[in-house]
Amino acid sequence: MNKLIIILAFSLAAVNSFAQETDSIVIKKISDEILTNGNAYTNLWFLCKKIGPRLSGSPQAQKAVEATATMLKNAGADTVYLQPCMVPHWIRGKKESGFIKLANGKKHSLNLCALGNSVGTGSKGITGDLVEVKSFAQLDSLGEKVKDKIVFFNFRMNPTYINTFDAYSESGRSRGRGPSRAAKYGAIGAIVRSLAINADDFPHTGSTFYNDSFPKIPAVAISTNDANFISDYLKNNSSKASFTTYSEMLPDVESYNVIAEIKGSAFPEEIITVGGHLDSWDLAEGAHDDGAGVVQSIEVIRAIKATGIQPKRTIRAVLFMNEENGGRGSKKYLELAKLNKENLLFALETDAGGFTPRSFGLDMKEEQMNKIKSWKHLFYDYGVYDMHAGGGGADIGPLKELGTALVGFEPDSQRYFDIHHAATDVFEAVSRRELLLSAANMTALVYLVDKYGL
Amino acid sequence: MNKLIIILAFSLAAVNSFAQETDSIVIKKISDEILTNGNAYTNLWFLCKKIGPRLSGSPQAQKAVEATATMLKNAGADTVYLQPCMVPHWIRGKKESGFIKLANGKKHSLNLCALGNSVGTGSKGITGDLVEVKSFAQLDSLGEKVKDKIVFFNFRMNPTYINTFDAYSESGRSRGRGPSRAAKYGAIGAIVRSLAINADDFPHTGSTFYNDSFPKIPAVAISTNDANFISDYLKNNSSKASFTTYSEMLPDVESYNVIAEIKGSAFPEEIITVGGHLDSWDLAEGAHDDGAGVVQSIEVIRAIKATGIQPKRTIRAVLFMNEENGGRGSKKYLELAKLNKENLLFALETDAGGFTPRSFGLDMKEEQMNKIKSWKHLFYDYGVYDMHAGGGGADIGPLKELGTALVGFEPDSQRYFDIHHAATDVFEAVSRRELLLSAANMTALVYLVDKYGL
Repeated sequence: MNKLIIILAFSLAAVNSFAQETDSIVIKKISDEILTNGNAYTNLWFLCKKIGPRLSGSPQAQKAVEATATMLKNAGADTVYLQPCMVPHWIRGKKESGFIKLANGKKHSLNLCALGNSVGTGSKGITGDLVEVKSFAQLDSLGEKVKDKIVFFNFRMNPTYINTFDAYSESGRSRGRGPSRAAKYGAIGAIVRSLAINADDFPHTGSTFYNDSFPKIPAVAISTNDANFISDYLKNNSSKASFTTYSEMLPDVESYNVIAEIKGSAFPEEIITVGGHLDSWDLAEGAHDDGAGVVQSIEVIRAIKATGIQPKRTIRAVLFMNEENGGRGSKKYLELAKLNKENLLFALETDAGGFTPRSFGLDMKEEQMNKIKSWKHLFYDYGVYDMHAGGGGADIGPLKELGTALVGFEPDSQRYFDIHHAATDVFEAVSRRELLLSAANMTALVYLVDKYGL
Repeated sequence: MNKLIIILAFSLAAVNSFAQETDSIVIKKISDEILTNGNAYTNLWFLCKKIGPRLSGSPQAQKAVEATATMLKNAGADTVYLQPCMVPHWIRGKKESGFIKLANGKKHSLNLCALGNSVGTGSKGITGDLVEVKSFAQLDSLGEKVKDKIVFFNFRMNPTYINTFDAYSESGRSRGRGPSRAAKYGAIGAIVRSLAINADDFPHTGSTFYNDSFPKIPAVAISTNDANFISDYLKNNSSKASFTTYSEMLPDVESYNVIAEIKGSAFPEEIITVGGHLDSWDLAEGAHDDGAGVVQSIEVIRAIKATGIQPKRTIRAVLFMNEENGGRGSKKYLELAKLNKENLLFALETDAGGFTPRSFGLDMKEEQMNKIKSWKHLFYDYGVYDMHAGGGGADIGPLKELGTALVGFEPDSQRYFDIHHAATDVFEAVSRRELLLSAANMTALVYLVDKYGL
């Protein structure tokens, strides 16, 4: 009996070892295919240079829907379809401008941009005394003293955090919630330090979220150099700021998630989602955010077909619309999954730039997490060496209520906030090999989840 | 007695755990200091934009010697001195050009550059039938058939290797040894595919090593796009190539290694070397190669002083001259270390670009390697997660004969060969945070080696 157990254990170990060897061979094949023949970089070029900025509701967003549907067909998907959803249609309008007045009578003009979803000042602009705050607590303690003034939210991103997203989460509240918190105390406008770590001249946009209990006040981001200048200046001076923005929220328009599938051979009803978001801010090409995630998701489909993998489960690439200023595509995807009683087993999102691979963030049941972690060594040679709890992403996050196991792909974060939501997020800022190597890691994870289930 | 052992063991574990806690606190302090106040990026800007290309023997190389000596003083080194060495003085001369002749009578002009150390053609140029080879074996089998012809070495870098240096080592022989191997069979010139993985229009220079047994023939690198064009063209056609280069080797000139020290408080005779190379190729700013290693080595000195670490051993930053086309600075450093009977305990070299940190390559005795590996967890949060045998670097390599423990710092390699030795190796290609984060890992290793010895 004991002997039998030993033999059995030995056989199981051998089978397991054989399986792992096969897996490492398949993953090498995936990586070789992508690094040699991958066309994610070419697709990204098209998205950035032939379409460009593609904010929800814009003609470019529509072009991006059409172009990526074609790319997915060319990648070899069995089915490509559009999933209609209504999206907000915010526009920036005419050229914005602003300045602060200096004691010598001169003006210091500001590199600024209206925050996404913000109301414009119109051609009259606004002018008000400038009050700097470095925390919400400071704003709250000033309270009504900011009435009729312009609040300058100077929340620096903490440069000592190694994962730059931690600094973004911490300081990002200034942009997301600051304007309404200032409006609560009667402020007439908000100027927000750009969410960038380095000192440069580019304003970084992004959504602000108005609280309906308070007036909607105009809000802009200024460059970190301008923020440093103003903060220094205000140490020994008072100043007024003026800015003019023309942004407005137009009626919702119809847009689409773009979806492609490779039908599973054994368990077609079990769906593996891999995606990024198709919309981008209007100031840049959205190369890293999130053109990279889009073309990598397409690459996953292409690589599976090109390497001849026959998935057991259905592999579905989803290019979500409207992540940046509404998340409507994500909501629609969840709504229809519920309506159609889909079995969304697993979802992988890439929305942290097309940089070199580092880790996967896992949001799922512990036994599922342990299963994925048992594959960790298979990724080591390809740059992913860390798997940890926490992660996911804005577009797949809502799927949690369906019990979907969520993974956020986490490339290196050092360069992301140099370009995030700014005019510098262009094709030239993306490395072809980093983009492809990350796509290889994504494909490898999809391959393993498909093969072994969760 | 047993009790005592248990208590002792417990105490030792506690001490060890306390030491490690202290180490992690010091390393956090180092990282915070560098990510907040590090000036490696500003120094790199100066080196790239105010000095520029600094090939050995050039006036800019001399300016770089002077400027970095000042930077090291400003960083707080106890001593800064120059170590004279004679260096080769190769110059590119006037603008190079070349083309291949097409069947339709037109010319396809080539993006080319003379290889470092190569002889020029002079104004007459050279013209010859073009013969493509993809391996040395193929060249050898052609043998005398290449007589009076121009050999086109089309050794592609293998894109499937994850560590791009592996592909560089493999294909790099074409540039280093190809021209002389062609000359052996009577070829009159060599055209070498640039050592770049991606397709682009930039020629990448680098040294060729003539074998004195054969004639020195002119040799150029062409862009990967041109290499692909020629290779395609030669499938169905024959062609002649022509090129004109004006490079020449002038008499040796005196130059310098730049050296700075923080004197050790307990074991000043035990020397920890940290360095990169000061010279760069003439086509670019040498931002990644190896401006990054230079300013990071300076940053190590600055950070040690700024954080108030009192090293027990002597910490020495060495900015080596002439790594690119002679290694004379490295030879001189070894020669004088022997002459002065220096105890060079440990050396860390950074010459793989200023990218995000990944690993340390260790070349030392096994027990030393084990000691360094026991610190691995201290680096994990800062991006270095791998330590493996093999590594070192061109400048510290010769110290092996002294028994020095060698470490090569290995940042992510995906982008390096996009810019290596080409006009694209400019300041703008360097990320401030990647540069600083890698400097933090370097400083942490120097701190641990200093504290615990090897």
